[in-house]
Amino acid sequence: MFEARLTQGGLLKKLVEAVKDLVTDGNFEATEAGISLQAMDTSHVCLVALQLRGDGFENFRCDRNVTLGIQLANLSKLLKCAGNDDIITLKADDQPDVITMTFEDPKTERFADFSLKLMDIDSEHLGIPETEYSATIRMPSAEYARICKDLSSIGETVAISATKEGVKFSTSGDVGTANITVRSNTAADLKPEQQTTVELGEPVALTFALRYLNSFAKAASLASQVQLSMTKDLPVVVEFTISDMGHLKFYLAPKIDEDEDMGDEVGES
Amino acid sequence: MFEARLTQGGLLKKLVEAVKDLVTDGNFEATEAGISLQAMDTSHVCLVALQLRGDGFENFRCDRNVTLGIQLANLSKLLKCAGNDDIITLKADDQPDVITMTFEDPKTERFADFSLKLMDIDSEHLGIPETEYSATIRMPSAEYARICKDLSSIGETVAISATKEGVKFSTSGDVGTANITVRSNTAADLKPEQQTTVELGEPVALTFALRYLNSFAKAASLASQVQLSMTKDLPVVVEFTISDMGHLKFYLAPKIDEDEDMGDEVGES
Amino acid sequence: MFEARLTQGGLLKKLVEAVKDLVTDGNFEATEAGISLQAMDTSHVCLVALQLRGDGFENFRCDRNVTLGIQLANLSKLLKCAGNDDIITLKADDQPDVITMTFEDPKTERFADFSLKLMDIDSEHLGIPETEYSATIRMPSAEYARICKDLSSIGETVAISATKEGVKFSTSGDVGTANITVRSNTAADLKPEQQTTVELGEPVALTFALRYLNSFAKAASLASQVQLSMTKDLPVVVEFTISDMGHLKFYLAPKIDEDEDMGDEVGES
Repeated sequence: MFEARLTQGGLLKKLVEAVKDLVTDGNFEATEAGISLQAMDTSHVCLVALQLRGDGFENFRCDRNVTLGIQLANLSKLLKCAGNDDIITLKADDQPDVITMTFEDPKTERFADFSLKLMDIDSEHLGIPETEYSATIRMPSAEYARICKDLSSIGETVAISATKEGVKFSTSGDVGTANITVRSNTAADLKPEQQTTVELGEPVALTFALRYLNSFAKAASLASQVQLSMTKDLPVVVEFTISDMGHLKFYLAPKIDEDEDMGDEVGES
Repeated sequence: MFEARLTQGGLLKKLVEAVKDLVTDGNFEATEAGISLQAMDTSHVCLVALQLRGDGFENFRCDRNVTLGIQLANLSKLLKCAGNDDIITLKADDQPDVITMTFEDPKTERFADFSLKLMDIDSEHLGIPETEYSATIRMPSAEYARICKDLSSIGETVAISATKEGVKFSTSGDVGTANITVRSNTAADLKPEQQTTVELGEPVALTFALRYLNSFAKAASLASQVQLSMTKDLPVVVEFTISDMGHLKFYLAPKIDEDEDMGDEVGES
Repeated sequence: MFEARLTQGGLLKKLVEAVKDLVTDGNFEATEAGISLQAMDTSHVCLVALQLRGDGFENFRCDRNVTLGIQLANLSKLLKCAGNDDIITLKADDQPDVITMTFEDPKTERFADFSLKLMDIDSEHLGIPETEYSATIRMPSAEYARICKDLSSIGETVAISATKEGVKFSTSGDVGTANITVRSNTAADLKPEQQTTVELGEPVALTFALRYLNSFAKAASLASQVQLSMTKDLPVVVEFTISDMGHLKFYLAPKIDEDEDMGDEVGES
């Protein structure tokens, strides 16, 4: 028996919207500890890793480990029927064919239940080695989203370079060139979520496909800050913290001379 | 000479928007009593019946009965030129080729007049027998609209079942199944327009094409409540009251084993 | 060296949005006096003339006259990356290949710079003779925009007639006919930007292609009032004042019996 009750249903809606264009289907793993998802995007270029701790739910119970193979487009359809303030409860048997979801609007006498068919999905679990990153940038997620969107209209790749002074995003295309710089800023009158900080072992500059960074920006609604962790020749980690519950991380290999499959970079387990 | 002056022009705009996708053209009948329209939708599945009493207009005069054959897409185009707070006056001769409309913005020195060509439209007037319904549901029209929209993304038909406790909408499709229940609720702290009530002779459950119920929901902007009247094997009546003026009713036959033409259900006169 | 610093970056964004659908590319001429652009639209029917005085900028410096050949679609792409409250600085060499733009958000530590490739564009400068107009209409630009949009859904041309009482816009099409009248109104309780005035030498009525008048209406975001200057057989001038800086004018020849090329009307220099 698996059962998880989430007071802030809007969170689940945002999570699914954030990853559904990258990942068409994936295995959600429910254990005593919580729910996790790890999946490559459809073009096998980037990796999505989601972790929701059980203690972040209002109620969480998972008697046996369960794998829930879900088509995200379908899950998204059902979650569109939930209000942002609905209480969402997920349930599944120990060997489930379906996952059931109930949506309760605490303010009205409306009550909805849905059952979603589960699928068998082949997937490998990638082991992601612990890494000390050369540079860790924290910045407002809305600023990150805006920069990725703005630069996408000009070029296809972006060079991100982190220095002590801040972080610079550069691109070029047929139209011309663009550089956007966000300086480190921890002024006392700034709210924590408006600050920009760069923790730097050594300066690092890497180039990425804007298309993916732009996709990751859909998660900006989940967290007011985003963290970019970079080391030369390693995938960047774009991380959104889900407050009191866990995180959503995206891994994307940098562009070298030619495109490379990310599998090599991350190392399969 | 026919002349009708309506202070709340936005009402006419909403009415036309509510029916124009179902009904491409129709005969508006103007009599001493008011204006009415009865028309089958283009696929001859459902029936639209509109009644606006003359005493609901600021001025209303109709010396002789006039039939105004109107293409609703054209009327909609012209009404898009009226503001929501414009005063709209309709005029036609006793044997009209055109209907003229004037739009006055009471706050500015703007004045617009339009003439719309009339058409000869073949139509039969269907006699709708008076019926005692087994169940009459009243609920917020916004809730009705949301349920129809939500379920449309999952299935093609909806089973509506009315019991003393409330009303349940159920559908299923490739994705899975869904049930949305709205319980009867007349709590003292609810505004009348937020209440849900079920008047029940006997419990009844009928199945309908969601596509049509969804179309009817466009009229939710006309009234804060919708009334669904159901009896086994008879068309449901989905009714929106137009305050102090009349009503807009939609009739839709339930799904039996196979689709049936609604003409049979309503009985032509 | 050319350098111009504009505190209200939103103005430049609106200007480019207002003309970019009419004019695909044009030569911006920078001189000591300011920046100007004159260009025919792509179908060579109407003329766009923009003037921004140097003293309207926070800083303005132009050592030598420079011609900046710019594809407006590309400029628009880059300006989409500027916030409405950004300070925009334009820079170019004396014989430039590119124009550089910097966008500064005065409230954050964000700083963006862009370089846009310039083009060689063939263009003739048309001499526009000074004219005494028979009628000069001033009206709220939002009202002008709404009338053009409303009438576009009904007909393809509009007759504009100016009398002492006000101005009337008329069209007709398959659907029917429409007349919208705005009366002169300078009532004391109206704000200046809400007033409508007609200065009249003699009454004048001219017919124009709605499509172009509708395009000009995109400039309504630049100014709360628009001025229409009309004389029989001459192009109308649709003028938006850019406060403290200059103006954006559109010239459009009236419809005579058959369409005529506007070049004849304006007279090439």
